[in-house]
Amino acid sequence: MTAPLRITIWNEGVHEVIQPEMLEYYPNGIHGALRDGLAENLPADSVISTAQLTDPEHGLSQEKLDATDVLLWWGHIAHDRVDGAVVERVHQRVMGGMGLVVLHSGHFSKIFIRLMGTTCSLAWRSDEGGERELVWNVNPSHPITAGIESPVVIDRQEMYGEYFDIPTPDDLVFISSFAGGEVFRSGVTFTRGKGRIFYFSPGDQDFPVYNHGTIRRILANAVEWARPTAAENSVPSVTNPAREWFTK
Amino acid sequence: MTAPLRITIWNEGVHEVIQPEMLEYYPNGIHGALRDGLAENLPADSVISTAQLTDPEHGLSQEKLDATDVLLWWGHIAHDRVDGAVVERVHQRVMGGMGLVVLHSGHFSKIFIRLMGTTCSLAWRSDEGGERELVWNVNPSHPITAGIESPVVIDRQEMYGEYFDIPTPDDLVFISSFAGGEVFRSGVTFTRGKGRIFYFSPGDQDFPVYNHGTIRRILANAVEWARPTAAENSVPSVTNPAREWFTK
Amino acid sequence: MTAPLRITIWNEGVHEVIQPEMLEYYPNGIHGALRDGLAENLPADSVISTAQLTDPEHGLSQEKLDATDVLLWWGHIAHDRVDGAVVERVHQRVMGGMGLVVLHSGHFSKIFIRLMGTTCSLAWRSDEGGERELVWNVNPSHPITAGIESPVVIDRQEMYGEYFDIPTPDDLVFISSFAGGEVFRSGVTFTRGKGRIFYFSPGDQDFPVYNHGTIRRILANAVEWARPTAAENSVPSVTNPAREWFTK
Amino acid sequence: MTAPLRITIWNEGVHEVIQPEMLEYYPNGIHGALRDGLAENLPADSVISTAQLTDPEHGLSQEKLDATDVLLWWGHIAHDRVDGAVVERVHQRVMGGMGLVVLHSGHFSKIFIRLMGTTCSLAWRSDEGGERELVWNVNPSHPITAGIESPVVIDRQEMYGEYFDIPTPDDLVFISSFAGGEVFRSGVTFTRGKGRIFYFSPGDQDFPVYNHGTIRRILANAVEWARPTAAENSVPSVTNPAREWFTK
Repeated sequence: MTAPLRITIWNEGVHEVIQPEMLEYYPNGIHGALRDGLAENLPADSVISTAQLTDPEHGLSQEKLDATDVLLWWGHIAHDRVDGAVVERVHQRVMGGMGLVVLHSGHFSKIFIRLMGTTCSLAWRSDEGGERELVWNVNPSHPITAGIESPVVIDRQEMYGEYFDIPTPDDLVFISSFAGGEVFRSGVTFTRGKGRIFYFSPGDQDFPVYNHGTIRRILANAVEWARPTAAENSVPSVTNPAREWFTK
Repeated sequence: MTAPLRITIWNEGVHEVIQPEMLEYYPNGIHGALRDGLAENLPADSVISTAQLTDPEHGLSQEKLDATDVLLWWGHIAHDRVDGAVVERVHQRVMGGMGLVVLHSGHFSKIFIRLMGTTCSLAWRSDEGGERELVWNVNPSHPITAGIESPVVIDRQEMYGEYFDIPTPDDLVFISSFAGGEVFRSGVTFTRGKGRIFYFSPGDQDFPVYNHGTIRRILANAVEWARPTAAENSVPSVTNPAREWFTK
Repeated sequence: MTAPLRITIWNEGVHEVIQPEMLEYYPNGIHGALRDGLAENLPADSVISTAQLTDPEHGLSQEKLDATDVLLWWGHIAHDRVDGAVVERVHQRVMGGMGLVVLHSGHFSKIFIRLMGTTCSLAWRSDEGGERELVWNVNPSHPITAGIESPVVIDRQEMYGEYFDIPTPDDLVFISSFAGGEVFRSGVTFTRGKGRIFYFSPGDQDFPVYNHGTIRRILANAVEWARPTAAENSVPSVTNPAREWFTK
Repeated sequence: MTAPLRITIWNEGVHEVIQPEMLEYYPNGIHGALRDGLAENLPADSVISTAQLTDPEHGLSQEKLDATDVLLWWGHIAHDRVDGAVVERVHQRVMGGMGLVVLHSGHFSKIFIRLMGTTCSLAWRSDEGGERELVWNVNPSHPITAGIESPVVIDRQEMYGEYFDIPTPDDLVFISSFAGGEVFRSGVTFTRGKGRIFYFSPGDQDFPVYNHGTIRRILANAVEWARPTAAENSVPSVTNPAREWFTK
């Protein structure tokens, strides 16, 4: 008896407004495509909700986060509009065990930079038509790759390339190549506090990558992998009361 | 619907014969205590069997291994009696995804040395009465530590200390201290091929450690963690036919 | 021909003022003891300077940091007095390759938390008289352990124990045990951006640990290990101009 | 004052005999090209020698190995001709601290498989004319990448692709892409015992990759990185006499 999985998909939701032609392939927005993909692949009792930048508290109140097992994060052109207090709230929940799946241009989100401690910069090229990305599985026994054919072929995508300035991941899961010859560590995991984090680069506002069946399956696998360990153990993050006065 | 877990416990079974006083606390042998501990903690449909050195093919025929999801390995004074062909058979199954839990003095087993590539030597001290071991959880979100109080107190145990000559583990899960002041990386994980490996040092022929409720829970957690990924993916270990003639 | 190593030792310098009895064993302050220890063990042409909280810009101007190969950081009760702008400046230098050695209670410094992305909390106990710490080498081929006997015996020290909430280190170098039975990952390395980081827990305002010959040798080894790679390579952290407007 | 570096280059030396057309670009054999590349890039006092399969004891007597700081290994079609006793001798030296650089098809050598514990299999394609390989630096602060432009362009090379069945490396240094779209972890490091190991895939009997200036520089960097830690420390691999009788 596993409790139903509670998922929140966060999308800044700006491209949907300023670039309405994307609604052709994402009629319900990026968050809508992500939601549909998870609904197709996760157990039927999963509870999936969405939140956006313009919602009160960006849709990420303490109550909402406390009721979230795994949070997905998609942002691109409005990272600096995200309130620092909300970022800290998300950070605390990750420390406590909430899973986090960071998508594509979310590599430059405040929460990802906060968790990584590095610049999270990368090389990129955004040609009009995009280019072919091949996503290679380099970790065939990892739960995130269960049932995934390798390589995953994405016909058109923005190039993200190395050097990707992140700490050494716990697990390197996918490496992508691009038609231009670049490579990218496109699927990587981290543990921070008790929280499991998966960064996955495929997916963009200009190309309908989140409609791709295999990409949807990978994201569902990632959500299941990132959920908190079922039985909570008795090793809380230590807070030494006597210390609190000198730390923030 | 997860398929029932199929577990084989391998015990060399020599101390039970040459040191019958141990049957006071392990009346059914070390393998019997391990079996009871797993039966207490795993789903009721789990299939648990045992095998010993003196069984034909050490109880590890190809058919048996093919029907094993996770193998536990306990050996001490008869490592060199284990047939190399059986070791290779176990190795191939680990490459293909079978989980392996190596216990205590199994650090010097042929299969563990074969998988690690190092000497697997360590420091040790075997006083008559043993000494107190404290097992500290240093990985509180790891599935193997789910529900485990830290530290686990083992009143009497043989000291195993650093330097433990193993490759850097994938995950460091437990660190032990001993009354004498030594420390030991007592719970460590590795992935080799598609197989997940957990080495766990507590447990000895001279002290009834496998009757300890928390140790039993840890071993059950480890078995669940080590089971092969449910859905097999399509990235077989590559065998290039043209190459086979020059490799063994 | 290696260029002379340029080291800056940062000490908050508050205990020296409010707890002057410590000047008995650290007559020139904690920074003075650290400086003497490095001077004893590093090449004679090394340039060692010190900086404190009360110096202008905490003694860490851009010019100073640009002329620093490795920075040591000791802080305890005044972490929150450290200016965030200086922390960002140090962070950028680490991204660019400056080495950083974080000492003892510096685990709660702003710069360490910024680089780790976790809470960096730990368990601790501060008895009047301290207790024995044994520092065990678990990485005998690491440059930081060159020439170090194991274990290093520290007669009196404050206990720091697990769980230590940090990301998985690149290298686990030392594990300590305490008379009370606790264990601690007391020497760990990380790479963040191009910078190498070593956290080392022995050392406290109440016990003269930095006068210990072996501890001094370890710190000198760490400084040499953390220096930037001699020949700069041509892979800068990428800054994509078109992106700068949406990131901070 | 660092002692001169003592390097042994091992080449099976079979292609030089059966495929003499390769002597056009490697007039002194593969080992000759490797020797020239190291001589160009290492300190002038380095001592570089070569050894081959047909030498007595394959040129790797105990005396020779004891006087070797770093061993390079190139083999392809005669792995099974390498005497197991020599492999064990090399293995023991790696355990004791000798560096090892394994090249290209050496992934299937007995010594590499012995050290990795996995199958070391990979995907490959050998077209007549080869194809373009781009070698990307994903670890810009690593000593092995010092002074290396990224990517390194190799005009013609045999494709080696994922899945590469190795344990998770200590450091992932290079990732290659091929004209066919494949990716490969082409530069990876491991520590086994006290020995440092670098596997580097570029280099083949059919293409003059070891004449490439940047490849030569990478190999020289790797040799310097792999040399044993200068000052020996006092943590020997433990051999417990009482245990020797039950291990091999």
